[in-house]
Amino acid sequence: MNKPDKILLAHGSGGSYYQQLVEEVFVPAFSNPVLSQLADAAVVAGGTEQLAMTTDSFVVRPRFFAGGDIGRLAVCGTVNDLAMSGATPRWLSCGMVLEAGLPIAELQRICASMAAAAAEAGVAIICGDTKVVEAGAADGIYINTAGIGTFPAGRKPLPCRLTPDSLIIASGTLGDHGLAVLAARENLNFSPPLASDAAPLNGLIADLLEAAPDTEWLRDPTRGGLAGVLCEWAEKSGYDVEVAEEAIPVAPAVRAACELLGISPLHAACEGRLIAAVPPHQAEAALAALRAHPYGRDAAIIGRVLEKEQGRALLRTPYGSLRRLEPLDGEQLPRIC
Amino acid sequence: MNKPDKILLAHGSGGSYYQQLVEEVFVPAFSNPVLSQLADAAVVAGGTEQLAMTTDSFVVRPRFFAGGDIGRLAVCGTVNDLAMSGATPRWLSCGMVLEAGLPIAELQRICASMAAAAAEAGVAIICGDTKVVEAGAADGIYINTAGIGTFPAGRKPLPCRLTPDSLIIASGTLGDHGLAVLAARENLNFSPPLASDAAPLNGLIADLLEAAPDTEWLRDPTRGGLAGVLCEWAEKSGYDVEVAEEAIPVAPAVRAACELLGISPLHAACEGRLIAAVPPHQAEAALAALRAHPYGRDAAIIGRVLEKEQGRALLRTPYGSLRRLEPLDGEQLPRIC
Repeated sequence: MNKPDKILLAHGSGGSYYQQLVEEVFVPAFSNPVLSQLADAAVVAGGTEQLAMTTDSFVVRPRFFAGGDIGRLAVCGTVNDLAMSGATPRWLSCGMVLEAGLPIAELQRICASMAAAAAEAGVAIICGDTKVVEAGAADGIYINTAGIGTFPAGRKPLPCRLTPDSLIIASGTLGDHGLAVLAARENLNFSPPLASDAAPLNGLIADLLEAAPDTEWLRDPTRGGLAGVLCEWAEKSGYDVEVAEEAIPVAPAVRAACELLGISPLHAACEGRLIAAVPPHQAEAALAALRAHPYGRDAAIIGRVLEKEQGRALLRTPYGSLRRLEPLDGEQLPRIC
Repeated sequence: MNKPDKILLAHGSGGSYYQQLVEEVFVPAFSNPVLSQLADAAVVAGGTEQLAMTTDSFVVRPRFFAGGDIGRLAVCGTVNDLAMSGATPRWLSCGMVLEAGLPIAELQRICASMAAAAAEAGVAIICGDTKVVEAGAADGIYINTAGIGTFPAGRKPLPCRLTPDSLIIASGTLGDHGLAVLAARENLNFSPPLASDAAPLNGLIADLLEAAPDTEWLRDPTRGGLAGVLCEWAEKSGYDVEVAEEAIPVAPAVRAACELLGISPLHAACEGRLIAAVPPHQAEAALAALRAHPYGRDAAIIGRVLEKEQGRALLRTPYGSLRRLEPLDGEQLPRIC
């Protein structure tokens, strides 16, 4: 059997080409004993009374950009969704849809990036599936990862609620990922270049919850950005949430790019940031824990939960006026993750 | 906000169109309290010491065919992969990649089919994600499901090994799904029409394992068909495996269609059948249990494991000669699931 250097439809057949792909690309990249059994389902020990499960598909265009690629995103996105619930991310699945013609070297590069991110996050990719569609029926590669998390002894799922006076904290500058992808897509050369913030946040969150165990809610501001998170929190909790525009950390290069492109950094996506709601008595400890971690250096308190029960997300401008934040409505940034 | 009847890029933005899609299509279709929380990760109680996890992406073309559709496949495929390990399927995730322009009515029809299959299997779809790509960057809809299974008290993961003299059992006629999809794709009108066998097999497997607790291995003959399963078993176990051609159940209409199209039913895919390796002392009980279930009526013993350790899958023809079975090599049936 010859060894093609591009994905063929035959790689999706379940036959010998498929086997070759699995054994020569996926298994070596994601090396672990559970995956290597290549069973219909992967079996792991160590479940706990409560489990967290999540899934995310990745269709980002282009597949490679400063600070990351589709593979790093695919691992970080699912790791982060699990960690936001208070769970420790443990096991990931990987489902790929490949377009015939994708260079296998590129697939290997993406798998290596997934493996590196998984190693950093301390998770294992334990099962997978690959389908191949004909040229023109996908755009190179789409990756789905699903994940399982468990709750360490003494840690419960976050309550996902807000209390008046709780403080809103951002773990770092916002919008870096969205603008980095857009810059790569449109071949815009900013100086300094814009790099994605894509990162696994489970370590940062473990430190945060250690310092601020009464943390009420965590969300990663991915599609829809900070505004999306705040609108959701306000609507679900019923409380007004207010953030101060000048307190929101935005990197100067991202701010400049946003102005140039007519994009609001409050709606731009991150892939390595979190927004936290923390009661006032633990806010300073939370901030210190975040800032002590490499992924939280630029953490800042950006706002607070109000007593008013009108369910609005509000932005206080530097001039003191209040503006209502709305979720993203249109197709501002398709295929950002 | 207007209500479009087709998928827009804006449905993928994470903003208000996305929210509308989630709240008006997915949450009602997959109705359950865990999913309704729409958290980053779904949290469930009831994990056990051991967990099974699997994932599968579905790109079948066409999306609707006699006996099923992409939604039914997406649930059954993952349910079956979990059940083949001996686990009880419990929770599913659903990751969708939608092409802009997909009629929302069609998406709803697919979700209804997923919900019906999930209800039949007794599993809950507890988390999901949706991405939208521009027209031309996918073919309507691709669905990934990942699944978690737990092991009921007293049931262990199947050992996934073969023992000489163990019998090979097929739970029903082979190739129905593959030929049904092909007939739909090519607008071939067979009489009687060919219908997919797509079905959730966890109930059938529970009955089988009750009757034959020493069952050694279960596999669903999806892509690559029966030949793929037998080649894998022979290679992994090191034993020769022999099946008798005239013992293999193939529906007359499928056999006729295979002859017409030049396809071997031994390589054609099923989505509602299993192949079991059962020690001889439990084989009759296994067969009786399978035949007593609606999805196992046509179950048959089709072969056995030999003493010879050459790792070959062998077909005994009606004339008594032995032919080596090979896994599918080419692109016989792309996008069959």
